[in-house]
Amino acid sequence: MRLSRYFLPLLKETPAGAEIVSHQLMLRAGLVRQTAAGIYAWLPLGYRVLERVAAIVRAEQDRVGALEMLMPTIQPADLWRESGRYDAYGPEMLRILDRHGRDLLYGPTNEEMVTAIFRDSVRSYRDLPRILYHIQWKFRDEVRPRFGVMRGREFLMKDAYSFDLDAAGARASYDLMFTAYLRTFAALGLKAVPVRAPTGPIGGDLSHEFHILASTGESELFYDSALDAIDPADPAAPERLRGLYAMEAEEHDRLGTCPVPPERLAVRRGIEVGHIFFFGTKYTKAMGMAVPGPDGTMVTPLCGSYGIGVSRLVGAIIEASHDQAGIIWPDPVAPFDVGLLNLRPDDPAVAAAADALEARLEGAGLSVLHDDRDLRAGEKFASMDLIGLPWQVAVGPKGVAAGTVELKRRASGERAELSPEAALAAIAG
Amino acid sequence: MRLSRYFLPLLKETPAGAEIVSHQLMLRAGLVRQTAAGIYAWLPLGYRVLERVAAIVRAEQDRVGALEMLMPTIQPADLWRESGRYDAYGPEMLRILDRHGRDLLYGPTNEEMVTAIFRDSVRSYRDLPRILYHIQWKFRDEVRPRFGVMRGREFLMKDAYSFDLDAAGARASYDLMFTAYLRTFAALGLKAVPVRAPTGPIGGDLSHEFHILASTGESELFYDSALDAIDPADPAAPERLRGLYAMEAEEHDRLGTCPVPPERLAVRRGIEVGHIFFFGTKYTKAMGMAVPGPDGTMVTPLCGSYGIGVSRLVGAIIEASHDQAGIIWPDPVAPFDVGLLNLRPDDPAVAAAADALEARLEGAGLSVLHDDRDLRAGEKFASMDLIGLPWQVAVGPKGVAAGTVELKRRASGERAELSPEAALAAIAG
Repeated sequence: MRLSRYFLPLLKETPAGAEIVSHQLMLRAGLVRQTAAGIYAWLPLGYRVLERVAAIVRAEQDRVGALEMLMPTIQPADLWRESGRYDAYGPEMLRILDRHGRDLLYGPTNEEMVTAIFRDSVRSYRDLPRILYHIQWKFRDEVRPRFGVMRGREFLMKDAYSFDLDAAGARASYDLMFTAYLRTFAALGLKAVPVRAPTGPIGGDLSHEFHILASTGESELFYDSALDAIDPADPAAPERLRGLYAMEAEEHDRLGTCPVPPERLAVRRGIEVGHIFFFGTKYTKAMGMAVPGPDGTMVTPLCGSYGIGVSRLVGAIIEASHDQAGIIWPDPVAPFDVGLLNLRPDDPAVAAAADALEARLEGAGLSVLHDDRDLRAGEKFASMDLIGLPWQVAVGPKGVAAGTVELKRRASGERAELSPEAALAAIAG
Repeated sequence: MRLSRYFLPLLKETPAGAEIVSHQLMLRAGLVRQTAAGIYAWLPLGYRVLERVAAIVRAEQDRVGALEMLMPTIQPADLWRESGRYDAYGPEMLRILDRHGRDLLYGPTNEEMVTAIFRDSVRSYRDLPRILYHIQWKFRDEVRPRFGVMRGREFLMKDAYSFDLDAAGARASYDLMFTAYLRTFAALGLKAVPVRAPTGPIGGDLSHEFHILASTGESELFYDSALDAIDPADPAAPERLRGLYAMEAEEHDRLGTCPVPPERLAVRRGIEVGHIFFFGTKYTKAMGMAVPGPDGTMVTPLCGSYGIGVSRLVGAIIEASHDQAGIIWPDPVAPFDVGLLNLRPDDPAVAAAADALEARLEGAGLSVLHDDRDLRAGEKFASMDLIGLPWQVAVGPKGVAAGTVELKRRASGERAELSPEAALAAIAG
């Protein structure tokens, strides 16, 4: 993609009102623009990141057998009256009246809708267990939206719902999702800590929040540092992780005693990006869902729900991975793999070399953002650092004469002068 | 994918209230469920079709250089006050009041928003031309939603917007989109007729609707049957098509005279699935967008917008391609390529043969829905015909003994007994 034909409005100044670094960088790097309080348009570069994050979330849901569907954004109020949540939900629910005076709402979550769909479709215990999920825009009318996409009003969420016949099955579904979440965050290039969350009246340990570690995080975590040594790819990782102490500060303080010796207790800041919990028959009972079991008696399915904040993750990744110069995208979610800088677009030999390298990089399956604009080299380097593509390759007149390009790894800042072939080999890994 | 673990609620009876065949079949084949008047949830099978349609639409937009972004569903009313459309739009606009009493709306289209974003970002004539698009859910509060996803209230639309500096550029953008639309419908396996649409005060021939031919279509078309012989892949196709007469009945009747001799005039029914039009400076002027041109004088960009009804297309495809037994998906949008029927799941030899064939088909890059349910063969064949996958392969005890499977092409009904290898070769083409 040539930058001269792209739509990438960068800002030199930090925009007023953007309090946290991810919000500042998302605006400066041309990823999003606010269109109303807490509501954002995703510009082409930001949309590419959002899609890559969503694709990784999707792949890990599919891998554990969850079935993707798509529920609408607008829901009838009557559904929420069935569960009793319509009146309970409060002013965060965006309530809408249609032209015929019917009460609608913009869904903040989908327990009621998925339960109604499943209830009206399944006929027997053979139709369970199932995990259904979708990735859809939600709305919560936050009283004070802020921090950009981290606490927006319209936000993209993956929400999954499990239906099981008994407690053992529900536990197995929960474990599947726990594993999927560890894999998801690892695949995104992130370190996530599963924190035991209060479960309310149901009790047990069937609720976890997943936090990304970031020094700018909104929550404070206390956890057994043995957790840092666990490899999420290890099949035993879920069980080992769940055996280790990890709590949010509030819960940690409330408990008063900590089983972890002080020298092993890590205190870090985190950003919540996922939440899974088991809630049993709460919605199936309220909404009258039951199926005939193997022996003919009716069974009320046990359910869990499993959320990942997809748009929030984009902000959280930036909080976890940036420096003074800008964003440092982890490879798996970068909007383009390579930033190619033509340092002298007016020099035909340089332009030809840059074009040839772009074609070779793309031929190797890499995505390339080619800065062919008529600007000073310094400005181009600064732009590339700001938008944070994993690799930068600069093509200039001296290099063309010497048969070299300059390769830079954004994360480490390492630079090397090498042949285009060697640069390609280094990037393609 | 094994059907025993999938979520595919089929209906034997035609649901009451579904007036047209696509609506009936989408409900019966477990593609969608209505959750409120004119609002549908896409179940896993339907969602796969919707995604395939969207992917084809996206690929053809990208091919002509349009840039994908994603604008939010909820818009501030003030944006629409800038253009003057907030009061003009009427009761089809879903108007919303947030908790702070601010007027919002669920976007029915995005001219205002994209113009505001573009206006606030571009600095010079060098930033033009651009075509921006997104594929996003829209809402129109139809007074009487009906025909399933064909005239729903919440619907998925691809809308693109072009910004040009002069009339020649705007014409070129329009032509690019015209070409992209022809390619899109051809890639979807559909025959589309571009019909000249009234352009109102702007005049000229810069508005076209694209109709899919279907005997159950809502509109009546009159066109020069020379159009049927034009290959959309031919680079000259756009120009040739635009030179041929094609009108909706109302416009045809209004004109009174027809340039096409009666023996060459085709009269067919169609379903509108796309609409492109040029509207000049209507929004850029109203919203104060101008950029410095090459000579320093300010230029107000000329714009067009280009819509495709993505969710509507799913219904339209079924209207155009079905028979008494069910849906006949065109290959490019089928939710799975192959339906694999295990006719005797209780017979280990048959199950092993079916599993082995599933693995081979998937190994060849084909997607497979494997009906391993404990049901009568007749019911399985009927289910497969209903959901309309392009190929069916049946594995039963006689065939396993003889080393054969039964291959059926859904569209033609042709059947053949042949070896699994030969079946795979026939499907992989």
